[in-house]
Amino acid sequence: MLEIKKIVLIGAGNLATHLAVAIKHSGKEIIQIYSRSIDSAKILANLVQTDYCTDLSKITDKADLYIIAVKDDVLTEIVRTLVIKNKLVVHTSGSVTMNILEQCSTNFGVFYPLLTFSKDHDLNFSKIPLCIEANTNHNLELLKHLTLSLTDKFFFINSEQRKILHLAAVFAGNFPNFMYSIAETLVKDNNMDFDLLKPLILETAEKVQTVKPLQAQTGPAIREDHKIMEMHLDLLEKYPEYKDLYLIISNEILRRKKND
Amino acid sequence: MLEIKKIVLIGAGNLATHLAVAIKHSGKEIIQIYSRSIDSAKILANLVQTDYCTDLSKITDKADLYIIAVKDDVLTEIVRTLVIKNKLVVHTSGSVTMNILEQCSTNFGVFYPLLTFSKDHDLNFSKIPLCIEANTNHNLELLKHLTLSLTDKFFFINSEQRKILHLAAVFAGNFPNFMYSIAETLVKDNNMDFDLLKPLILETAEKVQTVKPLQAQTGPAIREDHKIMEMHLDLLEKYPEYKDLYLIISNEILRRKKND
Repeated sequence: MLEIKKIVLIGAGNLATHLAVAIKHSGKEIIQIYSRSIDSAKILANLVQTDYCTDLSKITDKADLYIIAVKDDVLTEIVRTLVIKNKLVVHTSGSVTMNILEQCSTNFGVFYPLLTFSKDHDLNFSKIPLCIEANTNHNLELLKHLTLSLTDKFFFINSEQRKILHLAAVFAGNFPNFMYSIAETLVKDNNMDFDLLKPLILETAEKVQTVKPLQAQTGPAIREDHKIMEMHLDLLEKYPEYKDLYLIISNEILRRKKND
Repeated sequence: MLEIKKIVLIGAGNLATHLAVAIKHSGKEIIQIYSRSIDSAKILANLVQTDYCTDLSKITDKADLYIIAVKDDVLTEIVRTLVIKNKLVVHTSGSVTMNILEQCSTNFGVFYPLLTFSKDHDLNFSKIPLCIEANTNHNLELLKHLTLSLTDKFFFINSEQRKILHLAAVFAGNFPNFMYSIAETLVKDNNMDFDLLKPLILETAEKVQTVKPLQAQTGPAIREDHKIMEMHLDLLEKYPEYKDLYLIISNEILRRKKND
């Protein structure tokens, strides 16, 4: 079986940058970076010491794999123009179906790392679950090989599952983060330090690494402690939107408890 | 200034157990455990090698500090009966005012550890923020000294602030945990492993240890990606309650973004 050695990276944003560094460390060769923005292309190409281009038609045909790591709307544009015949091409989107790549090549797949990427925060790629999918078993094997050089956490996830996973990630990451921001507002408005809540935030996330979330559920709602809930709702008089959220989430915890 | 050396622990539940072990390790002496349940009293007294009683009137008057570490409703009952004259007495509740202890002694305060305690999970007490309050400066100093032997994270928090903190902890801990449980349901129902989401959960909690939550906010709502949000709402057709939650939390993220 052929192995993926030479890679072209299409995109130069957060994900592309993290990916480029991880791939380079794994010993594979990134032979070209494409970005619409010449500045972004230059910076990333410089970081991993390779060539770059800003024109899709200038992308080399010498690679074994083409990774499109761009935002969903840019992805839709790129696949309309990009032609790489029979070379393996993958995208990295959680919410776009694999078959969108049929337009670009006869060999295609998805390489979706399930984590939020931001420039502010260093990441260890080996801890990130990589979800892969491909149009043939052979392509899936190729992707599996590549993945194993980056992480030992890889999963075969089809396009329908991936959409659900992307949605579940909103509940597992984005919404908890927003809850943290409400907690921060409440303590700050009352002259307390957000540091007070940081150990609790970490402990809550650590607990579900080994205990099921429903088993780990604590708080007034699951205890059906209506006295405390009423006190909390009173305290939230100044924050009508948070009061609504408190009520709706608490009711949902109660409903779920009763149904289980 | 006198120092707290001998302690009576009233309660033998999760918090009392963690507290008893931490206090013993710190070199202070627990001279008695009280619990209504003889079994619980025995188990904890055995664990920290001390005496126990199950009758409030049998509580010794030889201690420097009496810690009432019980549930809120039990606390209300206990303070009606307990008389310890001028000895320092504290409770550990996040939502009960300090002054409830006026009935028991002329010296009183609060010793509130801000974390969820469960038997399933080991805890390092030194990482837990302890919130203290007392009716005199002298008592506050005594509590501060005790606290420093357990953790370096202590905060002076008055009764009004503590109520808000307790509410904020619901947003920082209980609600995120419930979001995790929804994410788990979504992946399980689609034959995927909850393990996929665990690194994201941890990464999200770790990020806000150094970055402000609003700065760390990612996801379709903050990006105003209505196309993705509509796709997610379609996927949630089977789960009307989660669909409502998704819509309400997303709208609140959008509203907050616009107001900031």
